[in-house]
Amino acid sequence: MLPKGFKVGGVKCGIYEKGVKKDIAVFVSETPASAAGMFTKSVTKAAPVIFDINLLSKSKKINAVIVNSGCANACTGKKGLDDAAKMAQLTQKAFNLPDNSVLVGSTGVIGQYLPMDKIVRGVEALKNAVGTKSIDEKNAAQAIMTTDTYPKYISKKFKINGGLATVWGCAKGAGMIHPSMSFNGLHATMLSYILTDAYIETKTLQKCLETAVKQSFNCISVDGDTSTNDTVIILANGASGVKLSGANLKTFQNALNEITLSLAKDIARDGEGATKFVEIEVSGAASAACAAQIASTIATSPLFKTAIFGRDANWGRIIAAAGRAGVNFDPYKADIFVGSLKVCKKGQAVVFDESKAKKILNKKEIKITLNLNDGKYSAKYYTCDFSLDYVKINADYRS
Amino acid sequence: MLPKGFKVGGVKCGIYEKGVKKDIAVFVSETPASAAGMFTKSVTKAAPVIFDINLLSKSKKINAVIVNSGCANACTGKKGLDDAAKMAQLTQKAFNLPDNSVLVGSTGVIGQYLPMDKIVRGVEALKNAVGTKSIDEKNAAQAIMTTDTYPKYISKKFKINGGLATVWGCAKGAGMIHPSMSFNGLHATMLSYILTDAYIETKTLQKCLETAVKQSFNCISVDGDTSTNDTVIILANGASGVKLSGANLKTFQNALNEITLSLAKDIARDGEGATKFVEIEVSGAASAACAAQIASTIATSPLFKTAIFGRDANWGRIIAAAGRAGVNFDPYKADIFVGSLKVCKKGQAVVFDESKAKKILNKKEIKITLNLNDGKYSAKYYTCDFSLDYVKINADYRS
Repeated sequence: MLPKGFKVGGVKCGIYEKGVKKDIAVFVSETPASAAGMFTKSVTKAAPVIFDINLLSKSKKINAVIVNSGCANACTGKKGLDDAAKMAQLTQKAFNLPDNSVLVGSTGVIGQYLPMDKIVRGVEALKNAVGTKSIDEKNAAQAIMTTDTYPKYISKKFKINGGLATVWGCAKGAGMIHPSMSFNGLHATMLSYILTDAYIETKTLQKCLETAVKQSFNCISVDGDTSTNDTVIILANGASGVKLSGANLKTFQNALNEITLSLAKDIARDGEGATKFVEIEVSGAASAACAAQIASTIATSPLFKTAIFGRDANWGRIIAAAGRAGVNFDPYKADIFVGSLKVCKKGQAVVFDESKAKKILNKKEIKITLNLNDGKYSAKYYTCDFSLDYVKINADYRS
Repeated sequence: MLPKGFKVGGVKCGIYEKGVKKDIAVFVSETPASAAGMFTKSVTKAAPVIFDINLLSKSKKINAVIVNSGCANACTGKKGLDDAAKMAQLTQKAFNLPDNSVLVGSTGVIGQYLPMDKIVRGVEALKNAVGTKSIDEKNAAQAIMTTDTYPKYISKKFKINGGLATVWGCAKGAGMIHPSMSFNGLHATMLSYILTDAYIETKTLQKCLETAVKQSFNCISVDGDTSTNDTVIILANGASGVKLSGANLKTFQNALNEITLSLAKDIARDGEGATKFVEIEVSGAASAACAAQIASTIATSPLFKTAIFGRDANWGRIIAAAGRAGVNFDPYKADIFVGSLKVCKKGQAVVFDESKAKKILNKKEIKITLNLNDGKYSAKYYTCDFSLDYVKINADYRS
C-alpha cells in the first residue's frame, strides 16, 4: 500500500521495441518532499546520476522521480545531460510541479541516446496512468525492470506516538549488481525508489538512507560488476502527519532497514540466471571490515557460485576465496557450514553426509556460514548462483 | 628441447581414478641448481607452497621438483605438511639426491589428503620414466594438468659470449587463475616450472624471476579466483657453462620474459571453457598502476567476458568496468577499439560497421584497446571469454 500523498504508475512507451514490457515509470508526491539519494561510485556515472546529484545538492525538496528502462543514458556526453534535464522538465510540466523538483533515473544499454520522442509520449501517457491502487504500484515496479523476472515492491506501516505512517519501496536489479553506494556513488544498475508519508528533515533523511543502504543494497552482488547508473532515492512528504525526530527515528530506521533489506535480497534472489539465493555469513572475525571483505569476496567468486549452481558442497572454494580476500586470518581456526551441516572444521575436511549436503543444496535458499573463531565481528552478504542462463542472458543481451 | 643436465618425466599413479591422465611429474637436475620461486599470496596457502617457501628460505640449491595433479594438498593441516615433506623425501631417495634438495607442488581438489600410497608408486615409476626426449617433456607437462585441454611447454636458446644456453618452461592453468605472485604469494592454481642450464647466482635468479612473472603470469586472469597453490619455480644448473652476470643478464631476462609470457598467454588461451583469447591493452594512462588496475578490472568482468563469448561489441561494459576500477580518469577522453575498429570515441558511441565487428569477434584471438588519452603509461592483461562450458566445468568439477 502506498504512503499518503503519493501517486505512481508505469506504462510502455516503446523503448523496448519488441514485446509488451512497460518502460517508463513515475513516482509523484502531491506536496514537496524531503529527498535523499545514494549513487554509484563509478567514474563513468550516467547522465541521470549526474543530474540527480546536482539537483539534490542544491534543492532538497522534490516532487517526483521519472524513470525509464531499456536505455541507461550512460556514456552519452552533453546530449545525455540535456536529455536527462529535458525528461525532468517534461515531467514537471505534465504534472504541474515546481521548478527543479523532478529527479530522473535510467537503466538499460550503455552508450545509446535516450529516444526522446518515446520519452515525450511516455510522460504524456503517465499523466492518465498514475494512481494509488495496487495495480499502479505493480505497473511502476514493472516499468523499471530490465532482465528482472518479477517486479519487486513492498510496504510497511509503523506507529509513532499514536500516528500511523507508511514506507513503501520498489527496486530493480538482475545484472551489473554489486552495489557500493555513497551520496556520490553505488555498484550495478540497481535502482530503488522509496516513498514515505512521514515528515523528516532532509539531512536526517540522508543519514537514515545511508544507514539502511549499508546493511542492504551494499551487501548484495550478482556478478561483481558495478554499474554506471545505480541509484536509490527516498522521498518523505509528511502527508501522514507523523513527524520523525529524536527517539522516533529508530522506529522509522527499523522500518526502512527492513524494506531495503527485503528489496536487496529480492535483487540477489532474482539475479540474472539465478536458480538459488545464497546468504553468506562470516562470523567470529577480528573486525567488521575483515568479515565484510571476506563475505564479499566469497559472494563474487565465480568458482563458489558455479559450485552452488552445481549443488556441490565444495568448501575448498569457500576457504580459497576467503584466503585471497586480502585480509589476514588463521585458516586453521575456521569452520564452514552449509546450512546447519558442518563441512569443514578448523580449516580441514570433516566427514559429512553428502546426501544431506545435496538435500540442503537442492533448496532454493541456501545459507553458508564461515566462522573464523577469531573475534566477535560478523557480516552478511547476499548473492545468487552462477548458472548457464547467466552466460546465455549476457552473451545475448544487446542483440 | 631441455637444457643440459636436466631430466623430466610424467606418469599416471592413479590420483585420477578414472581415465588415463598422467598425474605425477618430476623435474631433475643432475647437479645442484640455483633455485627461485614465486607463490600465491593467499592466506590459505597449501602445504606444498608452505614447504617450498620454507625450503627456499634456507637452502637455495635444489636438485628436483616433484609435482602431482588431482589433489591440491590444501587445507590439510599438519598431515598435509608431513605428506609434502614425505613426497620430497621419497623423490630424494629414489633419485639419490642430497638432503633438502627437492621442492614439491600439487594442484587439484582442495581439502583432501594426498593419497600417499599412490604417490609412493608414482615416484617409483618416475625413476624409469625420466629422460631428455621430446616425449618426456610432453609427459611432464601433461602430468601437471588438471582441466587444461593441452600440455604447455616451450624452450628457447640464447647466446652469451659465444656460449649457448637454453631456457625451458612448462605450465598448467585452466581454473582458479588470477595470479598475483610474490616470493611469499600468486593467484590461481597455475603451476609453472622453468629450467635453464645457464649459471646464475640465487639472489639474481629470484630478481629475474620476479621481473618475468610481473609481465606474464601476474597479467592473466581466467576467473579472478586466486588459488591456494600457485607456484612458479626456476632451476638454473649451469650445465651449459654459460655464466650470467652484469650485462649478460639482459639476454637471459629477455629469454625468460618471452618464455613466461608465452606460457602465461597459453594459460589464458586454455582457460576453463574458453572459446577466445583476449588481449586487453589500456594505454594513455596517467600512471602504470592506473593502466594495470583498469586492464585487470576489465579482464575479470563477467559482463565483459560473456559479451566476448557472445561476439558482442558491447563497449559499454568495457567502459563501465573501467569506471568501477577504483582509479580516476576522464571517461570523455577515452577511445575504445575492438581489433582495429573504433567503437567508442571520447567516451561516446561512434557509428561503426557491426558486420566488421562481428568478423573481428568471430576470431579466436581478440585485441581490445582502451586509450584513456590522459598520459603515457600502458598495461596489458590477458584473459579469455566466459562461456557456457566454464559454468558446466565448474558446476561439475568435484563429482
